[in-house]
Amino acid sequence: MTSFTKGVIPSTEKFDGSSLRVLIVHTRWNYEIVEALVRGATETMTSEYNVKAENISIQSVSGSYELPFAAQSLIKASKMGTQWFNVVICIGVLIKGSTMHFEYIAEAVSQGIMRVSLDSGVPVVFGVLTCLNDEQALERAGLGDRESKHNHGIDWGRCAVEMGVKNCKWMSGII
Amino acid sequence: MTSFTKGVIPSTEKFDGSSLRVLIVHTRWNYEIVEALVRGATETMTSEYNVKAENISIQSVSGSYELPFAAQSLIKASKMGTQWFNVVICIGVLIKGSTMHFEYIAEAVSQGIMRVSLDSGVPVVFGVLTCLNDEQALERAGLGDRESKHNHGIDWGRCAVEMGVKNCKWMSGII
Amino acid sequence: MTSFTKGVIPSTEKFDGSSLRVLIVHTRWNYEIVEALVRGATETMTSEYNVKAENISIQSVSGSYELPFAAQSLIKASKMGTQWFNVVICIGVLIKGSTMHFEYIAEAVSQGIMRVSLDSGVPVVFGVLTCLNDEQALERAGLGDRESKHNHGIDWGRCAVEMGVKNCKWMSGII
Amino acid sequence: MTSFTKGVIPSTEKFDGSSLRVLIVHTRWNYEIVEALVRGATETMTSEYNVKAENISIQSVSGSYELPFAAQSLIKASKMGTQWFNVVICIGVLIKGSTMHFEYIAEAVSQGIMRVSLDSGVPVVFGVLTCLNDEQALERAGLGDRESKHNHGIDWGRCAVEMGVKNCKWMSGII
Amino acid sequence: MTSFTKGVIPSTEKFDGSSLRVLIVHTRWNYEIVEALVRGATETMTSEYNVKAENISIQSVSGSYELPFAAQSLIKASKMGTQWFNVVICIGVLIKGSTMHFEYIAEAVSQGIMRVSLDSGVPVVFGVLTCLNDEQALERAGLGDRESKHNHGIDWGRCAVEMGVKNCKWMSGII
Repeated sequence: MTSFTKGVIPSTEKFDGSSLRVLIVHTRWNYEIVEALVRGATETMTSEYNVKAENISIQSVSGSYELPFAAQSLIKASKMGTQWFNVVICIGVLIKGSTMHFEYIAEAVSQGIMRVSLDSGVPVVFGVLTCLNDEQALERAGLGDRESKHNHGIDWGRCAVEMGVKNCKWMSGII
Repeated sequence: MTSFTKGVIPSTEKFDGSSLRVLIVHTRWNYEIVEALVRGATETMTSEYNVKAENISIQSVSGSYELPFAAQSLIKASKMGTQWFNVVICIGVLIKGSTMHFEYIAEAVSQGIMRVSLDSGVPVVFGVLTCLNDEQALERAGLGDRESKHNHGIDWGRCAVEMGVKNCKWMSGII
Repeated sequence: MTSFTKGVIPSTEKFDGSSLRVLIVHTRWNYEIVEALVRGATETMTSEYNVKAENISIQSVSGSYELPFAAQSLIKASKMGTQWFNVVICIGVLIKGSTMHFEYIAEAVSQGIMRVSLDSGVPVVFGVLTCLNDEQALERAGLGDRESKHNHGIDWGRCAVEMGVKNCKWMSGII
Repeated sequence: MTSFTKGVIPSTEKFDGSSLRVLIVHTRWNYEIVEALVRGATETMTSEYNVKAENISIQSVSGSYELPFAAQSLIKASKMGTQWFNVVICIGVLIKGSTMHFEYIAEAVSQGIMRVSLDSGVPVVFGVLTCLNDEQALERAGLGDRESKHNHGIDWGRCAVEMGVKNCKWMSGII
Repeated sequence: MTSFTKGVIPSTEKFDGSSLRVLIVHTRWNYEIVEALVRGATETMTSEYNVKAENISIQSVSGSYELPFAAQSLIKASKMGTQWFNVVICIGVLIKGSTMHFEYIAEAVSQGIMRVSLDSGVPVVFGVLTCLNDEQALERAGLGDRESKHNHGIDWGRCAVEMGVKNCKWMSGII
């Protein structure tokens, strides 16, 4: 079989995040994992893209179902002031349990975050892991014992800076 | 395998619910379970967060499909008066049966409650159990024989106070 | 296992349906079953709640996919006149076939009816059976040979009266 | 088991389609099947309901994902002129392949067509087959070798005339 | 079994893309595959339909979840200028992994792209492969070792030109 390189390649553009205002909304379920993901996103944005730590607002909610509402309400709040959030990252960890809770929450949240981004005109990064077991969640937060572990928060941080910078241009009619 | 603490950690903030107005809409299917969940939510809000009993409006509908409509209509009703509901909890218990009723109701209701919260700007807590059997429902209402039983209404009460208090701030532009 | 009473308990309130205007929209697929369901709903509303037979408008469409559109359009039609429909019941019977038609129709219709109720402010009862075989459909229309048979139209009629009466209050700001 | 008559019964009303304007939008994938379905719908409308051939506009798109957009855009186009389309039929044939393309397209299209009908106020008949194999598609277009074959386009044509005629009344406030 | 010709037949109309403005938004995950798809779409539009290379704007985002937002935002940007995009192609490659990420992203994106097209009035072609393994993705980008390989970008390019040209007519009320 012909093979190809898996994963995401970086943009050819260099993004300067120094004037970006970023909102991270995260859950407090499975908090050790969430914390690692938030840290991965935050450190990536500040160290790789010059996002200022004071321009990253970190807010928490209880569970993933609250993420779309909180994102929408906080975006609205920021628009009352002088400095809008340029991009939002919603971070949570859903793990399959014995009921169907996982499936219905994951579906409603993935659609809800999409709606909030399209309604508000502010890009919202979907940083919700939808895992079938604990090991999958740990590994995707860069924790656990596997070699293949990788903190997805890093990807979300990169994605957020890119979308935030690009959307500023797009909102000015620059393509 | 590296392990982590399951469940939700409390917010570092202390929330004062003494001025909150809360709506609980619950179903009357599988009522003994629903009643335990409603009680768990109510007692948690009054005893842990000083929510006043007279500020909790408890309304019922027949089944879970009615929850989004009732929540929306009651939110609108409250906005006609002087005191809006600050937060809503929708409580129901869906249990898998032999037809596909469970799946389609669960899907429509989880999406419908999300829509009502995003449309209205009032946070709506998703307190609908989506269980594959009776035992799962009992256990999640703090009933039944298992050691692991836990009344999820407690979590929903906490979540509601937090979202209600936070959203009051967010609506004023405070982040 | 601790047990609990299955099914729905009646509201503690008595509902007077004598001034309600009710729309039933039903399909004509699997008509013998649909007819039993419509009759169950109608007789329950007139005999138990004093809904006037002349205030129940019964309209038909071909299949379930037409239900949301017909409900929406008929609600709009009633709002052109002096007497709005206070509540709608959509009745249909979907039975799993060999293609995926069942699944996509059921999904679109359960979401569509939810949308129509939330958009219009008129409660719409979801009276669509989503069955995996003929026997399940017959039993839920009170037909067939099983002891456990129960006409779900009865539940939908009760639910409709309750939602219709309650929503009249809610629309006036009474909670 | 008690049995019942499967299939759809005709309306008790006779519908006169002589003044109806109908839009058919069909795909060009699996065209031999689509063509049979379009012909079934068209011939039924003209021969059974006096719909005038010149009042049926037949438009094509490539695949099923394009159907909702085309229906919406063509409805808007017709509203710019003096004669609106009274009803639309979207016709396509989706057959399960080895990827998940079938599932996601079917879901988006069944929801998309529902949205277009509810947004526009023009009934849109869902004439998309969602088949697990070729034989199912052929049979439902009245092709193939089986005795049970039946051209579903016939049902869609009947459904379209009924919805078109009824919606004209409903739009005038007549129920 | 009666057989039929699989695949899509060309439109009987000849489309002239020489005045079309096309937006391609593609992801950078599994980039070698995406690149082949973008090239397939681009070359088809320029060589078969006279679309001018300078009228094709190619923009990238990180992953498929960003496609609907980027499409919406870029459409809005183009409407601020004098030359709107007439059609958009969203290109990405989702491959099933061990978590449920694939399913929720695919669902949200297929619905999100549909929403953007219906909201904006600009046709958006769904060029997202939803594959269960690498081989399926390669084959559908015209790569890999199989005889049956076919670059789907070619189909999307054709579809885009057709929808772009037709929608220009439809927007002027020409059917």
